[in-house]
Amino acid sequence: MNIAKPLSGLRIIDLTQAASGPMCTAHFAALGAEVLKIEVPSVGDSARRAGPYAGVSGINRFEQDPADVAMCFLKRNRGKKGLTLNLKSAKGLDILHRLVAISDVVIDNYRPGVTERLKVTYDSLREFKRDIICCSITGFGHTGPYRARAAYDTVVQAMSGAMEMTGFPDGPPVRAGFLAGDGIAPLFATSAILAALRHRDQTGEGQFIDVSMLDCLASLVWDAPMELIAAKSRGARVGNQMALVPANAYQCNDGTVVIMAGQQHQWVRLTGLMNRPDLLKDSRCATLDDRLANVDFVDDAVQQWMGPKSKADVISACESVGLACGPVHTIPELLTDPHLKARGLITSLEHPVHGTIPGATAASYPVRFGSLKAGYEAPAPLQGQDNSEVLSRLLGLSSSEIRELAEERII
Amino acid sequence: MNIAKPLSGLRIIDLTQAASGPMCTAHFAALGAEVLKIEVPSVGDSARRAGPYAGVSGINRFEQDPADVAMCFLKRNRGKKGLTLNLKSAKGLDILHRLVAISDVVIDNYRPGVTERLKVTYDSLREFKRDIICCSITGFGHTGPYRARAAYDTVVQAMSGAMEMTGFPDGPPVRAGFLAGDGIAPLFATSAILAALRHRDQTGEGQFIDVSMLDCLASLVWDAPMELIAAKSRGARVGNQMALVPANAYQCNDGTVVIMAGQQHQWVRLTGLMNRPDLLKDSRCATLDDRLANVDFVDDAVQQWMGPKSKADVISACESVGLACGPVHTIPELLTDPHLKARGLITSLEHPVHGTIPGATAASYPVRFGSLKAGYEAPAPLQGQDNSEVLSRLLGLSSSEIRELAEERII
Repeated sequence: MNIAKPLSGLRIIDLTQAASGPMCTAHFAALGAEVLKIEVPSVGDSARRAGPYAGVSGINRFEQDPADVAMCFLKRNRGKKGLTLNLKSAKGLDILHRLVAISDVVIDNYRPGVTERLKVTYDSLREFKRDIICCSITGFGHTGPYRARAAYDTVVQAMSGAMEMTGFPDGPPVRAGFLAGDGIAPLFATSAILAALRHRDQTGEGQFIDVSMLDCLASLVWDAPMELIAAKSRGARVGNQMALVPANAYQCNDGTVVIMAGQQHQWVRLTGLMNRPDLLKDSRCATLDDRLANVDFVDDAVQQWMGPKSKADVISACESVGLACGPVHTIPELLTDPHLKARGLITSLEHPVHGTIPGATAASYPVRFGSLKAGYEAPAPLQGQDNSEVLSRLLGLSSSEIRELAEERII
Repeated sequence: MNIAKPLSGLRIIDLTQAASGPMCTAHFAALGAEVLKIEVPSVGDSARRAGPYAGVSGINRFEQDPADVAMCFLKRNRGKKGLTLNLKSAKGLDILHRLVAISDVVIDNYRPGVTERLKVTYDSLREFKRDIICCSITGFGHTGPYRARAAYDTVVQAMSGAMEMTGFPDGPPVRAGFLAGDGIAPLFATSAILAALRHRDQTGEGQFIDVSMLDCLASLVWDAPMELIAAKSRGARVGNQMALVPANAYQCNDGTVVIMAGQQHQWVRLTGLMNRPDLLKDSRCATLDDRLANVDFVDDAVQQWMGPKSKADVISACESVGLACGPVHTIPELLTDPHLKARGLITSLEHPVHGTIPGATAASYPVRFGSLKAGYEAPAPLQGQDNSEVLSRLLGLSSSEIRELAEERII
């Protein structure tokens, strides 16, 4: 049986490169939209050349072969069609306009101002498709004093408060070790685009959507009580502690686990596992208020219990009484985690020429639908690999017309 | 003029509590859907009682007054209707079924198994609405060996590799200081639900959607070259360094800035600012490969240039040549940031009884639409505050029927 994908029939023009934009169009590809990734001829997406690389000789930190492609590019661009188009030429721009006329959404992550220079603003593109939806993902958005600044993930983490709030009280700020700035904005963008598509389907109206990486990450950071931190009644950096006590990372004899047992009923269960009924009567830790006032004492007691035990013993003890506890997975542990394998989250990384790259993994699209398929059906494309197929199928160009475009370096 | 919201007309039944679920239904509320937040009578969402609190006496770390509500609850539940319903009673379940019959989506974040016990699984609810879409957000998903385990944000960060990859090489793993585990899954869920709604509108088919917090966060973490880290050719924790050099956090005379200048054209511009043309000929840092082999040397040179300068001077110098650079904002700086203010990201925090809480801020919904409105139109609800209005408007119950339900503690 042919299982449908939720967004089949939708067509996206992808004018993005690097991380945040391609991550957005990857969500659309996974959900079944046709994504036409347009790169500047020969230059291409800068992420193609951001090592480490994968290719015929496997995984390498540096480029070994002309067909090597950066691993991050191969992950972020799965399931997309590869087109090239010189938008600075009149012919290239005309082809873009003809593609826009038969598409639903245009996504870019140019810096503000570039769409004006390239003549691909919402206002100019809607002349070719009245109800087009244009979404622009930028570091700081299209308004406000920082709008023209360059942004990278770390800059966004720094300016959003995420960095200031990550780390230990006695250490410096540190970035979250994954692309929180680049990765969260495209998730907001995907929702917003789908919401705008719903509105378009009901009203016939197109839309411009302005997504700022800084705003998106800051909106998550703001769940914390910012005013109390500013007033120094709570530190900005609290390591692995949470608002409840005990809730922290502790050392077992073979690694680190985190355990969350701050609510009273959880503390009762944990002291039961610890065989320490005395702690429930101890004025230093009987109630949550007591424990909040004596964090170190409580953490020491938990650490003493846990220290001689293995991670597996602690986790299974906690699981037996329903306490939330988990190992701090090292990367080798993560790569072989039975749960992620059972969920189908870990897949092999594919190269458009060399196929499966031995030993290289990628994460699948993480959402599971009951009776719809989601995921990537093809590896990331080579630059322009689908030029002929797409231009002939969608625009009816002949092979000699396509050859001419290539000779003129329009594609 | 009355500006439309993108999802107006859509109705969501919200069976969630704590963080991940309410964050998902908050996105729907911001986009204009009607969200019916259903809480267990008198018990309520556990996040109502997770300090710090806001109320008539302002912001306090501990509860001061019965009307005090946790600040995180007030942030995560803006724009929702407050209903109470005892789903363990036949009458309560019947009311839920009648609400499902006129709704589009049901979202829960129960642990797997609870929907079965409460008889609110997708299979049971679709008897009342053939094309209902049910989305379940859980720590580990509905399949796989860890599916029954309890999860909190920190557990998900620990088990996803995010914690192992955050921190300095010579320090322990540390969690990202914002709710990455709780906050990223609802963004995936929102996209997936909107995609399933599009499919429903085209085919009449409902859907079950299984969202695992672990899978969602791990899918972002996996952008990194996991295999190279596992093979120890790169450390799991690299502090604030990135794959390019120089790209790190540096100390100015009044705080910390991050700067990204690893690509060759960026390095040329930075050495220009530094007035160090010699570095472009130095075999320790002339090319990116040289700089990758001599990270400390390069970082020292940048630090020496920056050390005597102010953040503002460094940032404006970098901006003048288009280099990505930004301050590590402290929380007081963030609260007064002119850009976030200009963008309208920082709003006041509202209490359902006491109105604006002096000094308390919240982040608005971060996406800006050109000609659609997004955002929260009401504060988070009191428990059951909308029972009468919703039950009479949507189900036609009389005031005496509603009074009876309250007396029987069904609502």
